[in-house]
Amino acid sequence: MAALLGRWRPRARGCRLRHGPAGQAEWLLLSQLFQPLNLQAAGALGPGEPSCRSQRLMLQAGLICPAGPGCYHYLPPTLRALEKLVGVVDQEMRAVGGQKLSMPSLCPAELWRASGRWERLGPELFRLQDRHGKGYCLGPTHEEAVTQLVAAHSSLSYRQLPLRLYQVTRKFRDEPKPRFGLLRSREFFMKDMYSFDVSAVAARHSYDLVCASYRRLFQRLGLPCVAVRAATGSIGGTVSHEFQLPAEIGEDRLLLCPHGHFAANVETLRGDQTSCPTCGEKLTQSRGIEVGHTFYLGTKYSSVCNAVFYSPENKPQLAEMGCYGLGISRILAASIEVLSTEDSIRWPSLIAPFQLCFIPPKRGSKEEEEEGAALLEQLYRQLAEALPHLASEAVLDDRTHLTIGKRRKDAEKLGYPYVVIAGKGVCEHPPVFEVWDQNAGEVLFLTKEGVVELLSKVQVP
Amino acid sequence: MAALLGRWRPRARGCRLRHGPAGQAEWLLLSQLFQPLNLQAAGALGPGEPSCRSQRLMLQAGLICPAGPGCYHYLPPTLRALEKLVGVVDQEMRAVGGQKLSMPSLCPAELWRASGRWERLGPELFRLQDRHGKGYCLGPTHEEAVTQLVAAHSSLSYRQLPLRLYQVTRKFRDEPKPRFGLLRSREFFMKDMYSFDVSAVAARHSYDLVCASYRRLFQRLGLPCVAVRAATGSIGGTVSHEFQLPAEIGEDRLLLCPHGHFAANVETLRGDQTSCPTCGEKLTQSRGIEVGHTFYLGTKYSSVCNAVFYSPENKPQLAEMGCYGLGISRILAASIEVLSTEDSIRWPSLIAPFQLCFIPPKRGSKEEEEEGAALLEQLYRQLAEALPHLASEAVLDDRTHLTIGKRRKDAEKLGYPYVVIAGKGVCEHPPVFEVWDQNAGEVLFLTKEGVVELLSKVQVP
Repeated sequence: MAALLGRWRPRARGCRLRHGPAGQAEWLLLSQLFQPLNLQAAGALGPGEPSCRSQRLMLQAGLICPAGPGCYHYLPPTLRALEKLVGVVDQEMRAVGGQKLSMPSLCPAELWRASGRWERLGPELFRLQDRHGKGYCLGPTHEEAVTQLVAAHSSLSYRQLPLRLYQVTRKFRDEPKPRFGLLRSREFFMKDMYSFDVSAVAARHSYDLVCASYRRLFQRLGLPCVAVRAATGSIGGTVSHEFQLPAEIGEDRLLLCPHGHFAANVETLRGDQTSCPTCGEKLTQSRGIEVGHTFYLGTKYSSVCNAVFYSPENKPQLAEMGCYGLGISRILAASIEVLSTEDSIRWPSLIAPFQLCFIPPKRGSKEEEEEGAALLEQLYRQLAEALPHLASEAVLDDRTHLTIGKRRKDAEKLGYPYVVIAGKGVCEHPPVFEVWDQNAGEVLFLTKEGVVELLSKVQVP
Repeated sequence: MAALLGRWRPRARGCRLRHGPAGQAEWLLLSQLFQPLNLQAAGALGPGEPSCRSQRLMLQAGLICPAGPGCYHYLPPTLRALEKLVGVVDQEMRAVGGQKLSMPSLCPAELWRASGRWERLGPELFRLQDRHGKGYCLGPTHEEAVTQLVAAHSSLSYRQLPLRLYQVTRKFRDEPKPRFGLLRSREFFMKDMYSFDVSAVAARHSYDLVCASYRRLFQRLGLPCVAVRAATGSIGGTVSHEFQLPAEIGEDRLLLCPHGHFAANVETLRGDQTSCPTCGEKLTQSRGIEVGHTFYLGTKYSSVCNAVFYSPENKPQLAEMGCYGLGISRILAASIEVLSTEDSIRWPSLIAPFQLCFIPPKRGSKEEEEEGAALLEQLYRQLAEALPHLASEAVLDDRTHLTIGKRRKDAEKLGYPYVVIAGKGVCEHPPVFEVWDQNAGEVLFLTKEGVVELLSKVQVP
């Protein structure tokens, strides 16, 4: 046993993060992860900054670290969740014909002047000049850029439409009062799609397709999202919907028909609307976090940049556009906000940074003497062979100076969907492992084969 | 046959990019890809801008589109290649214990003033102020940020070192003369890793490990990279190597020992060094494109931010650091620069945007009458079933109004590693397909089973 634990201990030099010979399945050692835990903290934040549950939990769990007002470092587990979420979004965007590209953050001022947004966005835009005095803004969205890009395609035919172009990039907005961690920051990740169609009818079809893909996305994440009628704001256009996650700390006020006939952001309503225009039922109020926003733009931007396609009669015609945003980093925080308890993080299973936490016996315990750690490692190897997609989803809580109970408590707070423990049962024949399904809130006692069967249902993007 | 072609044609509305019922393997239709081809162009660029082969080829092939001085849109095939390259880099960084995170682009001025780089970098830094007048730069590298992040970890133990943190993000540099497309742009993708160690010896071990991982990376990409002794420049530190791809248009001048005993950037040499200091052999001159750079930093940054760990005696000690950059977008362009011919793009096989191009018969040809298109589709389906990782790697050149010869010529220019053609042989029994292995420069005539066997060796990250 000493030899085995010896192998878990960091080697003196070199690559110690992963355990096991190169090429084999390897779990990550919790003690080596760069995830500064502060789980006992009462939630000390910046002085006077308004706070919320997700922000507090993410700071305590070593998921984010402040880097400046409204700017955060995304620590390793958060980046894993972010990359998984992007993977799921990519699947949904490809399913509606989305083509992924990447546009620069530096957006030339003259392009934004042409659309009128250089003035309209006022202090919300981060602005700068290059060494030659040429002006830029850091793109908060890219309607101008993508329209210019499509306009540069000098022989675009109606046969090539619809075009649905999207990117997932860092966006910038100089928020007057950044707050709530990743929910309202000044530098954030956004998925923005732009559609180009031959007609208003076709553009509305694109619009409906993308809205349907957003619904599917939130369904896959297990998030209770509502699409509400919304104002078009500085983006413009004539039709718009917000995708809202109901939450107390949400900054938007919504009015919802209990039968689902009507849903709107109150900012779109005139006067005191209290009953549903379709069924007359009394509307209920809710607060929401905006996680997505769609706009039917018409030719607002294509007319500025002269983004045309050639019709069957070979005549140039302005493309009909739509744009569609998803707050990628905001979805991460909003998920934690709505799924977690006061002191325990819960992730949408599909995008949890790690699916599994393994807890070996305490150093010097009876279970350790009975080779509990070795049995846990065997279980992991068998699992990694049977379910290779889970091989890199496992963390080993190697802090064996702590009791199993203390580490289970930490695992509960950190929100791994499954926690596998070499507890008392490992001394039985055959050994029995304790498995916590944290999202279901239940514990199961299973043999090695039972654990593998249970975990075979776990999905990763 | 008409029915089959009908199925290839864009449907009137909806999602037309991919062919085939949902859930099945689907190839992409070349006619629907957003990749504006301009393959006949003599290479018209901006007036007077110095140009090079990779820039010209990437513009003609619809891989990039200018968005402003030194800023480019990465069009869909390029983003695919970029994401593949990042996947390979992630594998190599994880193999040396790298933990991926993401730091903000907005870097507070006071942090850069503390390190002295706010002044030192002069006009190369993009600078801006927020609405409250607070100063920032757009990070060209993140030594200050990552050191502050590690310094914020108030109880870092020697047991947790080495820490090897990295990110792949957009970086910014206000180049006086941006040129050569993605080889020297003002907004670019970089992988930057930072190591934190307990001692100078341990830090040099981290340094050697990362350098070895860079060599492995370029070997996997099939790129002839040379590590040369380099100057430390504005980053600082005491030891530094550049990873250079020999190329005529390279901006660096290198001196190399023909036996591999010595390699240096001439800027590190005093006077006229003409022979190898080890073996006395005459040094040869070469030009190179810098695609990677490593620095042993010592405590240059950790002393500024007070980034300490606690020793076995529980005393705070400054961490010994290293930093390691890879020019991700530059590697894409440099690969094309060194592997391509004057008019045909060649990618490192592992990161080519698409591995396969399928060319069906010309509309109205004998091969079309003989069901050549249907046979090609069957081949694709069988391939996607046998080699699922290739299912999304295939483009169908559906421009069937063009001859096979014309489309093969385009495929040659665009550089798909494999081109599969339903030529004359499809009329035989069993049908024979023409397969061009473009990197090897050879053509094979193979049955369906032969094609599947040939392509079973193709790797994707």
